[in-house]
Amino acid sequence: MQNRALPLRASPGRTAPYPAVCAPLVARSADALLAEATAVAAKKPDLLEWRVDFFEGIADTRAVVELTRRLHEASGGLPLLFTRRSTSEGGETIPISETQVVALYEAVCAGGQVDLADFELFSDAAHVAEVRAFTRKCDVALVLSSHDFARTPVLEDLCERFAQAERMGADVAKVAAMPRDMADVLTLLDATLRASRSGNIPVVSMSMAGYGSISRACGWAFGSAMTFAVGENASAPGQMPIADVRAALQILRKAFGAAS
Amino acid sequence: MQNRALPLRASPGRTAPYPAVCAPLVARSADALLAEATAVAAKKPDLLEWRVDFFEGIADTRAVVELTRRLHEASGGLPLLFTRRSTSEGGETIPISETQVVALYEAVCAGGQVDLADFELFSDAAHVAEVRAFTRKCDVALVLSSHDFARTPVLEDLCERFAQAERMGADVAKVAAMPRDMADVLTLLDATLRASRSGNIPVVSMSMAGYGSISRACGWAFGSAMTFAVGENASAPGQMPIADVRAALQILRKAFGAAS
Repeated sequence: MQNRALPLRASPGRTAPYPAVCAPLVARSADALLAEATAVAAKKPDLLEWRVDFFEGIADTRAVVELTRRLHEASGGLPLLFTRRSTSEGGETIPISETQVVALYEAVCAGGQVDLADFELFSDAAHVAEVRAFTRKCDVALVLSSHDFARTPVLEDLCERFAQAERMGADVAKVAAMPRDMADVLTLLDATLRASRSGNIPVVSMSMAGYGSISRACGWAFGSAMTFAVGENASAPGQMPIADVRAALQILRKAFGAAS
Repeated sequence: MQNRALPLRASPGRTAPYPAVCAPLVARSADALLAEATAVAAKKPDLLEWRVDFFEGIADTRAVVELTRRLHEASGGLPLLFTRRSTSEGGETIPISETQVVALYEAVCAGGQVDLADFELFSDAAHVAEVRAFTRKCDVALVLSSHDFARTPVLEDLCERFAQAERMGADVAKVAAMPRDMADVLTLLDATLRASRSGNIPVVSMSMAGYGSISRACGWAFGSAMTFAVGENASAPGQMPIADVRAALQILRKAFGAAS
């Protein structure tokens, strides 16, 4: 197995624990966001994801950049993953265009406070290339992600999503899918295992909601470098509380023991 | 999903919790066995498995039957699974013949102290038929089991083992296999899921050792009705302590939530 840890910079060097436990921040106002960051950081995730599509001030670039700095402080320096999730992949409605989103990412990366940026694989290819260029220049690790909230694609399609992310220059490939039954959960884990073996970058995956929750505790054994867990509020269905994920990981890793 | 609970009698009625946590007893002497039963029962498994192939007095039928009664007492009435594991499937060397093993099972079942008996699927077919006849007569649930300590058979072969156990009249079909990698773990879980859907009896499965340990905490989500956990001593590689399995099950089942 090749269980690659999540990079915290685009250039090789700092990495997160394997698997990294990431807690999303989904507050709507600046004050609530900073309070959320403080409260969530106390629960000791390995990194925080700021889901900026929830933030009411997303159109104010200067405010967003300033908040990345204050989030860094409020969290005691936890690595920060910056994410705008689109409505088509489970995110919130926002008042800015895709071009403005790219410009926002560029300003945030230039601000030097974020370690990773999540951009959607199925965005306009020119935008992906642009984001790849400035994230690399700013030494921000790029997560190219794909989310299907309706179903779980077939195995070949899931594998292709991981591979496509790598071909497009991702530092991390992330795939999330909704299962209709436990067979879909096995398909997602199978694709994760194959991608972690055949690719050259860390992969992150999750099967969502109740059926998929198993993958949030066990995905690391199949090569997933990060799992999302609830600090104050969930950002997707099936996320468990940080303490639960930590406890499950500790038990499962101990039993996995010499095989890992 | 059809997650069938383990029957505690051959006739429909009493069932174990789903999934049942079963702790093996592997002491060699009668005194040590009773002490083990008392200590393990205090850790609150749902049932106990007496691995009689470890018992130095296995050739003394009267002593074995008497011990099933004393085990019942020592454990505070926990349901008892009676198992002789053959050397070819991971068990101990014993001084009695296969015919004597069948006679021992018959005496034990007639003694009325055991709820389930595990007999190996790949035993002589006449012996399986004989055991099936007297277990049914004694209202003891019959587990027909198969263990491969060298490898994980391909999906079709695993499915056939579950199906064959049902065709031979089992009340429960059990399959254990050794994984060489995490793909083998997925194969075992896939076969479990298929068997739990297509068959009409509860299934029990485990992928063994470190890689397979995930299956001991998560197999229930794929239809496995029982997991083996360590009371005092493990009987197969990869078993976790009872408290760890209980904690993992509680966390995972809570997250599984409405989907279950």
